Amino acid sequence: MQLSDALSLIREIPDFPIPGILFKDITPLLGDAQALSAVTDSLVGDATSYTHVLGIEARGFILGTAISIRGEKGFIPLRKAGKLPHTTISKSYGLEYGSDVIEAHTDALSRGTRVLIVDDVLATGGTLIAAIEIAQELGAEIAEVVVLLEIAALGGRARIEEKFPNILVRAIVVD
Amino acid sequence: MQLSDALSLIREIPDFPIPGILFKDITPLLGDAQALSAVTDSLVGDATSYTHVLGIEARGFILGTAISIRGEKGFIPLRKAGKLPHTTISKSYGLEYGSDVIEAHTDALSRGTRVLIVDDVLATGGTLIAAIEIAQELGAEIAEVVVLLEIAALGGRARIEEKFPNILVRAIVVD
Repeated sequence: MQLSDALSLIREIPDFPIPGILFKDITPLLGDAQALSAVTDSLVGDATSYTHVLGIEARGFILGTAISIRGEKGFIPLRKAGKLPHTTISKSYGLEYGSDVIEAHTDALSRGTRVLIVDDVLATGGTLIAAIEIAQELGAEIAEVVVLLEIAALGGRARIEEKFPNILVRAIVVD
Repeated sequence: MQLSDALSLIREIPDFPIPGILFKDITPLLGDAQALSAVTDSLVGDATSYTHVLGIEARGFILGTAISIRGEKGFIPLRKAGKLPHTTISKSYGLEYGSDVIEAHTDALSRGTRVLIVDDVLATGGTLIAAIEIAQELGAEIAEVVVLLEIAALGGRARIEEKFPNILVRAIVVD
C-alpha cells in the first residue's frame, strides 16, 4: 500500500476529548494490516542511527513497538506516573488540554544508548520535550524524534527546536 | 536468542503496585531486541487463524503490535474508559487489585473478523473475559487468547474456560 493511502485512513472526530478539539483518530489505520505496515516502514527511518525505540504511553506504545519489530530494536516504554515498578525518573509537562507526568526506569537508558523517540501526535510538544529531557538526563543520545502526525498550528516543532536545536523532528504527515 | 533466555529477562519487583504483590516486570525483556523478537515469534502462533490482533491497554498494546507487525495483521486497541473517540462498547471487570473498564470502537470488529486477543499477564482473567465479551458482542470470532505470563495460582484460566469452553488460552510461560 502507498503511504498516502494508509494516511487517508486517519479520520477526524469533532469535539473529542473536549469541545472545540478536532481529534485525529488513527485507529482505522492501525486496524488495516497493509496501512500499518506502510506507516511503520516510514516511521522506522534510518534504523542504523538508533539502538532503542522509546515509545510514549499509550499510542506511542503501538507505533513504537511496530518500529522496534520492523527495525529489530529493543523497546523502552515511557509511562504515566505510577505504572513502572522499578526506580524511575519523572517529568511533568503541559498538554494541549490538561497536564501529565511521564516516567522511565532509570536503568532502561544509559550512556551509549541512542534512542528514536516516538509518539503519535506532535501538538504543543510538551510530552516530547519531557521525553527528550528524561533520555538526556539518563545519558542517552537522541537519534531522532518521530511522530505520525504533526499539528503545525500548535507550534510544537518550534518549541522543541528552540530548546534542542540539534535534535531532528520528523513527521510522517503535517496538518 | 532462545525463548528461555528471553524469558529469563523478566524480573520480579516485590510489593508493587501494592504490598504483598510480587510484580513481574517485562520491561528488561522488551528492551532487548533479540528477546523481544524471540517472544514475538512465540506469541504470533498460527497467524493464518486470525485476521486481526486485539491488544489490551497498555502492555497489551506493546505485545499486540509486535504480533501485528510480525504476523502482518491489523491492530485493534482495547482501551481504558474515555480514551477512544468514536462510538464504543464498554465492559467493567474486577482485577487482581481494583477494578476497571475497557472499551472498543464498535466499528473496529464485525462478523468475519477473527481476532487474536493479547495481554501481558493472565491473573484472575477479568480483563480477558471482558475483552472476549466485547469481541463476541460485535460479532467477531475469537481465534485464540494469548498471554506472555500466566499466574496459575490466581485461577484465571479456569474462569475463562468455564465461561468460554471453546476458546483456547495460550501462555508463553506459566508461573
